[in-house]
Amino acid sequence: MRVLITGGAGFLGSHLCDRLIGMGHQVVCVDNLVTGSMDNVAHLLGHERFSFVNYNVCDYLYVEGALDAVMHFASPASPQDYLEFPIATLKVGALGTHKSLGLAKAKQARFLLASTSEVYGDPLVSPQPENYWGNVNPISPRGVYDEAKRFAEAMTMAYHRYHGLDTRIVRIFNTFGPRMRPNDGRVVSNFIVQALSGKPLTIFGTGAQTRSFCYVDDLVEGITRLLLVPSDRSPAERTDRQSFIYQSDTPAEQSIHEPINIGNPHELTVLEIARKVQDLAGTHVPLEFKPLPADDPKVRCPDIQCAKELLGWEPKISLEEGLRRTIEYFRKKLG
Amino acid sequence: MRVLITGGAGFLGSHLCDRLIGMGHQVVCVDNLVTGSMDNVAHLLGHERFSFVNYNVCDYLYVEGALDAVMHFASPASPQDYLEFPIATLKVGALGTHKSLGLAKAKQARFLLASTSEVYGDPLVSPQPENYWGNVNPISPRGVYDEAKRFAEAMTMAYHRYHGLDTRIVRIFNTFGPRMRPNDGRVVSNFIVQALSGKPLTIFGTGAQTRSFCYVDDLVEGITRLLLVPSDRSPAERTDRQSFIYQSDTPAEQSIHEPINIGNPHELTVLEIARKVQDLAGTHVPLEFKPLPADDPKVRCPDIQCAKELLGWEPKISLEEGLRRTIEYFRKKLG
Repeated sequence: MRVLITGGAGFLGSHLCDRLIGMGHQVVCVDNLVTGSMDNVAHLLGHERFSFVNYNVCDYLYVEGALDAVMHFASPASPQDYLEFPIATLKVGALGTHKSLGLAKAKQARFLLASTSEVYGDPLVSPQPENYWGNVNPISPRGVYDEAKRFAEAMTMAYHRYHGLDTRIVRIFNTFGPRMRPNDGRVVSNFIVQALSGKPLTIFGTGAQTRSFCYVDDLVEGITRLLLVPSDRSPAERTDRQSFIYQSDTPAEQSIHEPINIGNPHELTVLEIARKVQDLAGTHVPLEFKPLPADDPKVRCPDIQCAKELLGWEPKISLEEGLRRTIEYFRKKLG
Repeated sequence: MRVLITGGAGFLGSHLCDRLIGMGHQVVCVDNLVTGSMDNVAHLLGHERFSFVNYNVCDYLYVEGALDAVMHFASPASPQDYLEFPIATLKVGALGTHKSLGLAKAKQARFLLASTSEVYGDPLVSPQPENYWGNVNPISPRGVYDEAKRFAEAMTMAYHRYHGLDTRIVRIFNTFGPRMRPNDGRVVSNFIVQALSGKPLTIFGTGAQTRSFCYVDDLVEGITRLLLVPSDRSPAERTDRQSFIYQSDTPAEQSIHEPINIGNPHELTVLEIARKVQDLAGTHVPLEFKPLPADDPKVRCPDIQCAKELLGWEPKISLEEGLRRTIEYFRKKLG
């Protein structure tokens, strides 16, 4: 199988490159290195089944040769990043998704969109099942990411319904692990970097807001399963132009092409996570409280029933084990 | 003042062209005539202050000379249209908005986005104030329009916050009047065309869902006021890169640049509207009930307090008077 991954030099993208190369597939990694880093894929350069293209996927996207799958993972993905690059975030969600879908269509390849739990916004329902429509402020500063991803989902479903493209959408919940950037402002990496450098851990608000963190290896396993699970019908059967309006796919089909949550439903408060990092890092730094940013979600927890049923997937790695491995990574990186 | 209107040959766009020409302004009307029609602007061709460009605003957009305002009204806008052109609808909402904003930025022109009450989806709050975040299914077939417009709002706010562009966003509720297309599937035009041709009036569902219809002249008055109301601060004062994150504009400023509802809060059931059309058209055709389409909103009614306070605007023309004028238009058009 030959797979193109946009954002392949990012945190999640690079772990996907590793996994697919490890499984014997060919990988074309496309990244413009705005938030991605060559450090994440340096060990793959020179591998016969790996190639790297430095490119902005908002521009016309084409590669030579056959492709079996296109995975669209390019986007600034931490609040700090998409507040620094609001227009680039909107563009890669809309134009980048459109170009990636166009490439998949041209190559008759399967398409997988990296969507996000941010499409649920500040959810009024918890845990969030896939059919929850979300509670997003379209015009808040952080709305740029949420709306870009909601748009990307709508565009992906339109290509599925209208062009019969075999598409998959994963809604990724908070993830952590090696290759997070030390300074990208995410809770776990913030805490670890602060603890390892002997600084106070910054808590926004009271720390009572909850998050559920999935270790990156678990996430990559779930996404890989979603990518590889076969489609029930051939694309040709799905191109009936007349019938797509107001008509769903069959129930089984629907679940594979509609968004699927991948995340760890083990919910903790931000304060509990801070305490665990303090313990595991073995440094007794104090906590420091700062005001909560606008529209920061109060809860976030995946309902993963769909992933269990369709992909036989659930997370295996405990928060403690994941934190140990991540602290180890940052200790080497910063040391 | 020289104003460029995308979608200027559409139902609303053409009425805006008329109004601005009538006020003594220059108008550049841009339309690719997918759902717009030259019939709507034929009477303006040859006018010294009017020009027409046949163009798809998803492509690179540029015109010679100075512009004082860019109004982005291009989009398929009836459910029937955006279900027939789902990808074009997504593209004009994302790429078209981006190109139009880019043009406004290049010309240092004011930008006005035509958004929609559809950003509220199937609202759980009624009437809908501007700060209601909405209830939209991102992956339903009709989600293409809703998400395209939510994305367009997010992109517009990003240009305001990041580039200091003087932007305005109008959320347009159901509107009716002359130049609606006879066959575009909207409730009022459907009813009138059916009544005038002696066919049964089609009601989807029980007809108990409510809508509130604004006559086009009232709507155009509200939009024109929003376009012309001065900004409190100069663009230069708004380009402070450091302060835009997590920081709102001042309350007064906020209201002009954030979305404003324009619509008629007089709410009726679809059944009541059918009865009024029956009466005013003077033809005693029966009603015919059909199943409700997916995700059809059950209520839709604007809270127009903002428009009253900021623009001194409220609708003046009664539903009956508006229906009389619209029936007259269709009688001539079909006759």
